[in-house]
Amino acid sequence: MARIAVIGSGAVGGYYGGRLALAGHDVRFLVRSELDAWRARGLRVFSVAGDFCLDPVQCFARPEEIGEVDWVVCALKATAIGEARELIAPCVGPGTRILALMNGLGNEPLLAEWFGGERVFGGMAFVCINRGEPGVIHHLAYGRVSIGHFQDDARQTAELAGLLGSGGIEVVVAPNLLYARWEKLCWNIPFNGLSVAAGGVGTRSILDDPELRATAERAMREVVAAGNADLAAHGNEARLDEDDVVARMFAQTDVMGDYRTSMVIDYVLGRPLEVEAILGNPVRRARELGVSTPTMATLYALVRQADLVRRGVRQSLTAEDVAAPQSVV
Amino acid sequence: MARIAVIGSGAVGGYYGGRLALAGHDVRFLVRSELDAWRARGLRVFSVAGDFCLDPVQCFARPEEIGEVDWVVCALKATAIGEARELIAPCVGPGTRILALMNGLGNEPLLAEWFGGERVFGGMAFVCINRGEPGVIHHLAYGRVSIGHFQDDARQTAELAGLLGSGGIEVVVAPNLLYARWEKLCWNIPFNGLSVAAGGVGTRSILDDPELRATAERAMREVVAAGNADLAAHGNEARLDEDDVVARMFAQTDVMGDYRTSMVIDYVLGRPLEVEAILGNPVRRARELGVSTPTMATLYALVRQADLVRRGVRQSLTAEDVAAPQSVV
Repeated sequence: MARIAVIGSGAVGGYYGGRLALAGHDVRFLVRSELDAWRARGLRVFSVAGDFCLDPVQCFARPEEIGEVDWVVCALKATAIGEARELIAPCVGPGTRILALMNGLGNEPLLAEWFGGERVFGGMAFVCINRGEPGVIHHLAYGRVSIGHFQDDARQTAELAGLLGSGGIEVVVAPNLLYARWEKLCWNIPFNGLSVAAGGVGTRSILDDPELRATAERAMREVVAAGNADLAAHGNEARLDEDDVVARMFAQTDVMGDYRTSMVIDYVLGRPLEVEAILGNPVRRARELGVSTPTMATLYALVRQADLVRRGVRQSLTAEDVAAPQSVV
Repeated sequence: MARIAVIGSGAVGGYYGGRLALAGHDVRFLVRSELDAWRARGLRVFSVAGDFCLDPVQCFARPEEIGEVDWVVCALKATAIGEARELIAPCVGPGTRILALMNGLGNEPLLAEWFGGERVFGGMAFVCINRGEPGVIHHLAYGRVSIGHFQDDARQTAELAGLLGSGGIEVVVAPNLLYARWEKLCWNIPFNGLSVAAGGVGTRSILDDPELRATAERAMREVVAAGNADLAAHGNEARLDEDDVVARMFAQTDVMGDYRTSMVIDYVLGRPLEVEAILGNPVRRARELGVSTPTMATLYALVRQADLVRRGVRQSLTAEDVAAPQSVV
């Protein structure tokens, strides 16, 4: 049995950490806003894979109280990556390994810089999951986690697969981490990006509008080009097959109903958007590599603006603003 | 003195038609929503070039009442181009000529199809002008009109220049109409497009944000490429100089303050957007010509969506919509 710190106990951290605790691992959750509820009523998970409750649950307000562990599962939102170092550090000893169960590009490189690449892993959760009232998680569908090691160490990846598997979690070992990250971005960039840039829409709205759909496809092809250039730059032989990716992702999305991306949910609810992890970092990487990504860059510019407006850093024009005499250029 | 029908008596039609009437021409305005006010108090123009009032003013509810004229000045919003034919037809006789004083691409070709290209002209007004209360127009700055003939007939263009000049209107004869239209689109596509796609901002907000600014420049370079291909396809030798256009337009915009585009004003006030004339038609023309315009096409998709939402044809997601259990793909 392993000692595990879950840093970031939202829906994803709470659910996967909860599964591992249920299997008997010593799982310690860093809980911030919901700490009182977790202490009073434990962690309750309503799951298509079987409901469960951890009461009491090991939850802590500060990582120092958790102490050194075998595994850190970092399930912070990517917007909180700036805090990750100081939240994780107190849990890290010589043998500690760290799984970034997060969205977007650029999380593992930072963790590797801070803690050493040999102990860093990335995970992509394909799961429909939501927080309910404090201390409650609703797991609605799927649950697969695709994993890779930052240095593509197959032996270590197998160990992580074993750990997650022991909690009854479906695990897929990615061919390599960078490939898996870019492959996920092939979906996230067009659909998360457009869901917000189009003012708050689900996937059905994107697919049913010929111009939005064409824009999604154009963005996806740009992501493939950027991802393949990044793989090549890393001396990695794997490549994304552009037409296959487009066909597969659109077919998958077509059966999703009017699916709301995580980013559009954050947008509508006024939460910070994972704009740098999902859009900014990939766009900057493409620029470094000299790959043209005009559609991605446009989505980045617009989602970034939407995020700044929602956070009150910038304002949109109001009817009062434009009531002042103006022009018709 | 000429007999002139002004079809579409908003700020632009009212102002330029008013100038021509003041000079003694027989100007007849088609006025719809504001007819009672025009009849009761005439047309009052507060203008940096000198205030004036026409009372009584010749205003009519139906074009049949106007009858055949020498010149039709069509100053409808481009969104109303579908109505233009039946509004103009009653005023057209064998010698009538028609000036489209409108935004965007695609207006003159329709007028030419309906009434014959030899009598069609296009005009681009560079003017800061607004409607005030019914029957009142505020003219704040500039006023130059750049004109061209649909078949680039220099003699006829000179006649139109003479007519407008007789009203004290500053006229520039464009090298040719298609060039002038695309040149104006070099500004309108990035700045009108982004002002709406970014959720309602002025030009300062676009210029001050590095990603929005880069997107504006990228869009502008795409417009130049599409415009030059269109000019070439028409056997026209004129070409837009990409770097010159970018340098000039950004320099002009830099001194505009936080200028609100006509499109963002329409957007904020909930009016229909000139999305097809300014974005859709140029994007489709670029596609026909095989010119890659990913940034333009993305702006078109997003502004089109914004227009459909504002007009109630589509809905954006609400907090209630996303409160239903959802997913984190």
